[in-house]
Amino acid sequence: MLLRMASLTEEAVTLAIKALVDRNDELAQRVKQGDNAIDKLELDVDDACVSLLAKAPLAGDLRFIVVAMKIAHDLERVGDEASAIAKRAIKLTREPQLKPYVDIPRMADMCLSMMRDAIDAFVTRNAPKARAVLPRDQEVNELHKQLQRELVSFMIEAPPNITRCLHLMQIAKRLERIADHATNIAEEIVYLQEGRDIRHHKVQSQT
Amino acid sequence: MLLRMASLTEEAVTLAIKALVDRNDELAQRVKQGDNAIDKLELDVDDACVSLLAKAPLAGDLRFIVVAMKIAHDLERVGDEASAIAKRAIKLTREPQLKPYVDIPRMADMCLSMMRDAIDAFVTRNAPKARAVLPRDQEVNELHKQLQRELVSFMIEAPPNITRCLHLMQIAKRLERIADHATNIAEEIVYLQEGRDIRHHKVQSQT
Repeated sequence: MLLRMASLTEEAVTLAIKALVDRNDELAQRVKQGDNAIDKLELDVDDACVSLLAKAPLAGDLRFIVVAMKIAHDLERVGDEASAIAKRAIKLTREPQLKPYVDIPRMADMCLSMMRDAIDAFVTRNAPKARAVLPRDQEVNELHKQLQRELVSFMIEAPPNITRCLHLMQIAKRLERIADHATNIAEEIVYLQEGRDIRHHKVQSQT
Repeated sequence: MLLRMASLTEEAVTLAIKALVDRNDELAQRVKQGDNAIDKLELDVDDACVSLLAKAPLAGDLRFIVVAMKIAHDLERVGDEASAIAKRAIKLTREPQLKPYVDIPRMADMCLSMMRDAIDAFVTRNAPKARAVLPRDQEVNELHKQLQRELVSFMIEAPPNITRCLHLMQIAKRLERIADHATNIAEEIVYLQEGRDIRHHKVQSQT
């Protein structure tokens, strides 16, 4: 179920960005409708996990079950981000194109490859691969900041662009959050494989 | 631990908004530093829940444990939203004040009261009280949309305001998300008390 969720969310993000770039409303609508299937899968994963927990599993299984619920939740959120991107893409298609999109598809590629590697690390139980995902969040953050700066100067130069720039800013923000979800998933896998919780690193190193 | 998290997050949001309104950097810094304690509590809740799960609990306890982990996660996110608000407040204090803040503190009050009621419903195991939280999310969304519209016209009228307006938009967005977390918590409590999962209502009524 998690793999199915992962492939549906990857498809949703890819289609949402394609809808933006190709100015294709029909694609965007498809992303929004497809989100129901992803939401439903999260409920199914939770149900399955609660049933498994009821069977009094071993400590190792316990961790797996808890991690599975968390990954399902992150994937469900990625689906929401894709829908939000699709919604903004529809709004942008109704107005003249501001400029060709270069950085946003690049950012989407970075986020999707983080997501793919995190899921792959989960399937192959590969903690080093999961760890390798973590520093890439910083690269996405840098690109995001640069994009935001560019969009702000664009707005200041030409106020009629403001609404369109705000939509693009929101799309970039959503992509940045997809990278955060990929990071969460990678951290969960490290926890699962190494039994160490590496969330909130700063907290842990202080205590 | 959840109650302690709830009271720390409430304090963090309140202080972050106070830092914004009073243009008080020291308060804002305190919010950012305090977030570590909230993050640490989420890890503690998770550890406690995993230990409880390992004791092969009854079905009713199972649900409680799973819900507790989810609530801890939502509260941890509220702490992050408070830190993000504090960060923007610091940036705003460095520039001349755009206008007195009226709607943002009002929105914060609405969000905090949703959060308080959700936590209260959890403590008293009161599903109707939790259900009563849900429609209030819509009110917050409406206020949020109205605020965004106002800020956009403000930006179009006076481009030098753009950066400050963007900070305020982000603060409003963070508050809107706090209301979403309160809604999540309320839904979890309904699930806990009534055994019915009311997340993704649309999905459920279709399937």
